[in-house]
Amino acid sequence: MFDTVTIIGAGGRAGSAIAGRLRERGVTLAADEAELVVLCVPDTAIRDVASSLGTGPWVAHVSGATPLSALEPHVRRFSVHPLQTLVKSRGPEQLDGAYAAVTAETDEAHERALWLARTLGLEPFTLADEARTLYHAGAVIASNYLVTLYRAAASLFDEAGAPPEALVPLMRHTIENGFELTGPIARGDWATVDAHLAALHETRPEIEPLYRMLAEVTVA
Amino acid sequence: MFDTVTIIGAGGRAGSAIAGRLRERGVTLAADEAELVVLCVPDTAIRDVASSLGTGPWVAHVSGATPLSALEPHVRRFSVHPLQTLVKSRGPEQLDGAYAAVTAETDEAHERALWLARTLGLEPFTLADEARTLYHAGAVIASNYLVTLYRAAASLFDEAGAPPEALVPLMRHTIENGFELTGPIARGDWATVDAHLAALHETRPEIEPLYRMLAEVTVA
Repeated sequence: MFDTVTIIGAGGRAGSAIAGRLRERGVTLAADEAELVVLCVPDTAIRDVASSLGTGPWVAHVSGATPLSALEPHVRRFSVHPLQTLVKSRGPEQLDGAYAAVTAETDEAHERALWLARTLGLEPFTLADEARTLYHAGAVIASNYLVTLYRAAASLFDEAGAPPEALVPLMRHTIENGFELTGPIARGDWATVDAHLAALHETRPEIEPLYRMLAEVTVA
Repeated sequence: MFDTVTIIGAGGRAGSAIAGRLRERGVTLAADEAELVVLCVPDTAIRDVASSLGTGPWVAHVSGATPLSALEPHVRRFSVHPLQTLVKSRGPEQLDGAYAAVTAETDEAHERALWLARTLGLEPFTLADEARTLYHAGAVIASNYLVTLYRAAASLFDEAGAPPEALVPLMRHTIENGFELTGPIARGDWATVDAHLAALHETRPEIEPLYRMLAEVTVA
């Protein structure tokens, strides 16, 4: 569908994986005059970069939370957000198995968004422009705050003299089990929950409010 | 080391996996007069069940948070806590790759705890009796509250019209990447964090305090 693509921000986390994958698929990456320009720049820069581009080619961004209007003045526009946590130390294989949120305002744009998602090896689903912020908040909770949970748990393991790496099979398995809730709250064992809170209050008071809120949300 | 073992609570989540694995390893499960009795009962029942057993055989529990003193009056005692979320719909293979916290008061007991952990296919580490509560709080944060995060994120995806199953490769990858933090907080992109909070406030106010606390802990 597009033979030539320009990636702006090909040195970044998303840009390097996307550029690498397009190259693998035989797409020509052009410095200019490409049929499609994909902005892989920070969310805060999308508006400025888009407005600096001459109109004509298709323009897309890969941001989770940014509305399509940020691509103004371009009207041939869409967004493909790879729903994945991408790190620079890995390559395009990071995209394998991930989903992508595609957002477009016309059938023509939607078709092109699907092409980009599939060419990147992503499984596309359609996302309404006005739902992007809520969607992205969900992605941040699932991914970034999973890091936060791990860090909190690992710090308690360190304190207890247990190896933090022992948490990894536990967390993997929680996902593999389809997020079935086990443990004290599932058993209604409030004595254990209270004992945890008392131990945190005594030893790691900075983690107590987080534990308490997570317990309350879990019960609700 | 033990040829005969009695499992009390072999119908439960932990008991059924443990009984199944011991059987696979050729250990005889005896209704009574075994050399080792393993209590796979709810934490709140350990004290009562232990005190009802005649002294003589070794007695162990598999609880995360319960101290060894709950096994009184037995002195030949230890604990092996499989650090895994166990569900009834699966079998002993759930234990594969998991770690186990072993707690014992004598070398003799420690040796027996290691035997049980390894016979179950678990990778043992030694945990001090007084550190068990903090350790178990960490395990609950990593596993049970990961379920809570998923549920919150999935409910936002539902609301946004995105498929919750798209979160699974994202969460798996977050673990595979060694819990490297990406996303708006890692980028210092507070505009996106504020946009998430505003969208939650508008649409899903019950999730706003959780998001806010997790953001604060992540920044700290």
